[in-house]
Amino acid sequence: MPRDEMVAFAAEFDPQPMHLDEAAARATMLGGLCASGWFACCILMRMCAEGFVLDSSSMGAPGVDEVRWLVPIRPGDQLTLRATVLDTRLSRSRQDMGFVRFNFDLFNQRDQHVVALTTSMMMGRRAGATGSA
Amino acid sequence: MPRDEMVAFAAEFDPQPMHLDEAAARATMLGGLCASGWFACCILMRMCAEGFVLDSSSMGAPGVDEVRWLVPIRPGDQLTLRATVLDTRLSRSRQDMGFVRFNFDLFNQRDQHVVALTTSMMMGRRAGATGSA
Repeated sequence: MPRDEMVAFAAEFDPQPMHLDEAAARATMLGGLCASGWFACCILMRMCAEGFVLDSSSMGAPGVDEVRWLVPIRPGDQLTLRATVLDTRLSRSRQDMGFVRFNFDLFNQRDQHVVALTTSMMMGRRAGATGSA
Repeated sequence: MPRDEMVAFAAEFDPQPMHLDEAAARATMLGGLCASGWFACCILMRMCAEGFVLDSSSMGAPGVDEVRWLVPIRPGDQLTLRATVLDTRLSRSRQDMGFVRFNFDLFNQRDQHVVALTTSMMMGRRAGATGSA
């Protein structure tokens, strides 16, 4: 997580002191510069896209069930994504679509759990698929 | 919501066809180019920052309770933010802090409700404040 990218994102979207400036950040509860939680979400999205979404039948998502920012993300941190399927269900309105509910978890290089995110993605079904998703 | 900004954001963080390319987007369920839901969240954060957060005792947020992407955001849309305080409570661990739970709602120029987001922000309390938040 390069410092420049973290700070540039914050300057554009979340210009709070703890995301912008090392000295100002040290005076906050977070004790030093850390990434905006929204930047963490965006990086998580990019990792999902590269990891599997662009190679799937994803039709997007209607929203996010929950995000927890558990541990501050610091400049230089290396993040790993874990995707877990919680459950699947058919769409009631569209035969060709189902919902896949995921937990997405980010871990840093110290194996700390830094972000937990739960969301349902809309996925196209195989042609001719019937019954439960 | 300028088209260039929408597409540049998507190219960086959420490169799905419906956020990148008009022709590809027309073939999707969304029927045309629309903003990444994460871009909507980032714009909402910026509107909050400019609207009140940078002028408050905000100490950040531990996460997001829920996000609903209700209506696609299209190039040229003009968005308005409504912030509603749902409730407040004291921190159990820190006397100088409380939690303020908000609904944030984005509306477009046709007064359609496009995004609903619920989150709790950590806020510093006035010096000497006692009792309920």
